[in-house]
Amino acid sequence: MPELRKDPIIGRWVIVATERAKRPNDFKVSHADDREGACPFCEGHEKDTLPEVLAVRKKGSKKDKEGWDVRIVPSISQRLDLEGGLDRRGVGMYDVMDPVGAHEIIVESPKHFRDIHELPKKQIELVIETSARRIAELGKNPKLKYCLLFKNHGLRAGGSKVTKHVRSQIIATPVTPTRVKEELWGARFYYKYKDRCIFCDIIRQELESRERVVMDTKNILAVMPYASRFPFEIWILPKNHCSDFVNIKKDEVKDLALVFKTMFAKLNKALNDPPYNYMLHTAPFRHAKRPGYWKTIKEDYHWHIEVTPRITQVAGFEWGSGFYINPTPPEEAAKYLREIKI
Amino acid sequence: MPELRKDPIIGRWVIVATERAKRPNDFKVSHADDREGACPFCEGHEKDTLPEVLAVRKKGSKKDKEGWDVRIVPSISQRLDLEGGLDRRGVGMYDVMDPVGAHEIIVESPKHFRDIHELPKKQIELVIETSARRIAELGKNPKLKYCLLFKNHGLRAGGSKVTKHVRSQIIATPVTPTRVKEELWGARFYYKYKDRCIFCDIIRQELESRERVVMDTKNILAVMPYASRFPFEIWILPKNHCSDFVNIKKDEVKDLALVFKTMFAKLNKALNDPPYNYMLHTAPFRHAKRPGYWKTIKEDYHWHIEVTPRITQVAGFEWGSGFYINPTPPEEAAKYLREIKI
Repeated sequence: MPELRKDPIIGRWVIVATERAKRPNDFKVSHADDREGACPFCEGHEKDTLPEVLAVRKKGSKKDKEGWDVRIVPSISQRLDLEGGLDRRGVGMYDVMDPVGAHEIIVESPKHFRDIHELPKKQIELVIETSARRIAELGKNPKLKYCLLFKNHGLRAGGSKVTKHVRSQIIATPVTPTRVKEELWGARFYYKYKDRCIFCDIIRQELESRERVVMDTKNILAVMPYASRFPFEIWILPKNHCSDFVNIKKDEVKDLALVFKTMFAKLNKALNDPPYNYMLHTAPFRHAKRPGYWKTIKEDYHWHIEVTPRITQVAGFEWGSGFYINPTPPEEAAKYLREIKI
Repeated sequence: MPELRKDPIIGRWVIVATERAKRPNDFKVSHADDREGACPFCEGHEKDTLPEVLAVRKKGSKKDKEGWDVRIVPSISQRLDLEGGLDRRGVGMYDVMDPVGAHEIIVESPKHFRDIHELPKKQIELVIETSARRIAELGKNPKLKYCLLFKNHGLRAGGSKVTKHVRSQIIATPVTPTRVKEELWGARFYYKYKDRCIFCDIIRQELESRERVVMDTKNILAVMPYASRFPFEIWILPKNHCSDFVNIKKDEVKDLALVFKTMFAKLNKALNDPPYNYMLHTAPFRHAKRPGYWKTIKEDYHWHIEVTPRITQVAGFEWGSGFYINPTPPEEAAKYLREIKI
């Protein structure tokens, strides 16, 4: 069984594999080109994945058979398990717990598309709704504290060597990750001082200046942050205050799908299919035993999606220090992306 | 002039280039192989760098001419400047300041070696001493708060496409980076509770169990952390408590050079010249006006070097969340590295 180990200094948790672990000599660096193998995520290959946990299916179709539009399956690497206890214990001065949680793949299309902008807008809406539904389901499990939804597109963004089939991932954890906590604290600190949500203030200011706006729809805004860490970093936010992604409204789903389709098509064209990651930042799961805590997060936090193209190779130093050097002003990148015709 | 912009939510600072910026269309992704060009860091090419700020020179040799052993020059990309004021100001709700600071290259050998383990041990000692000397010099500038010493080895670790000449880098900043603050706070929190340095406790526990020890010398210990984020992550620490790297003693320099030479040779052999980063974590600069603050850091912080091979491609998600999945237990990686013969 893998372990959840805690860094004693800054409190960061790490899943350390023990079974199915990569052996040290698996890591010899190779520069050979990688080609896609047979795709386990295409319709008709349902047997090649673990049994589905949720699927949007055509009437009359059967579980783990053909006839689905969006399908969620546990990750084959399975570092986390919904069964098992919440046993936290010490190992000398260190802390460890069982790897309770879930790691799941959201297969975003039954066909072998490779990037989200290639999907019809209706299909992207279905992906968004199904993702929200699955996160809400996981939120009912009292052992879980947080759910991360993210996408790794392209090898340099952690994408798979085996298949490029369009998909995103969910990791639900029994602890709130350190970066998430940091953002929650920052937002609360601002709220305490100003009695306003910091994200709502950012939206107001960006809509006024417009120089960093990438795309502005009725309900959803895409903007390059003032202190962008990376060239072409984009934040996507609902214009109406809402802390929790699972409460996304039908109109917001439609606009978010439009933003995804347009913006990723533009990125693809502007940067020649760049590797990218995106990650949903949303409120932690709310459990009845912490009602007071939840009241404030509802007011001071605001869900959003952070898109980070991986087109600069400055990872190591910035990773370690939290200090970034961005060679491209976001105002310039936003203008460039606004003007790309697709 | 570049700007230092502050993320309003978590307080992370970013250097955003404005002049000499990369244009958005410079980022089209290419997969062509890169070959080394003419090397500006080799002896005899001193004219190809900016004028040196510090060099260990043979007697009678002249500034910016041949005849040096270690040479420190400002980075050609020059995002930071030691001249200029500390003007912090608001831009609407955002914060910005002038990019006071330094970005310098420590050229670690006059000859075209590519990795630190290829250098003679005496030369590595000289590199360590010269780095400490330069950091101490920068620390006298009251505008600067922190100095980061780091190395990017290999393309995937942010190394240069132009030349692989062995070198490390220094970035001195007018603010303390967020990750550094986080570690300082974590260490202080532990000290307040236990009245002991957390790093000293880690050293004690690791020397007792020995299962994660990579190399143990009289003064310097190399160990894989219990909650390693990456396969083969290594921390190098002085066994005697010391918060500030610039106070490194002669015996520690000798042992650190030995650890560098041995450990990087082992990594090179074990993993086939893997890309890696290392970063020095040391106390912020101490300025007379904050004597009380400094007293506690001296007791509760402990300088060390974090080495992170870049052999897994899981960057994006972990980067965003601070939640890591490590496919290899550090106990196994440490054993593997201990047994490598060089």
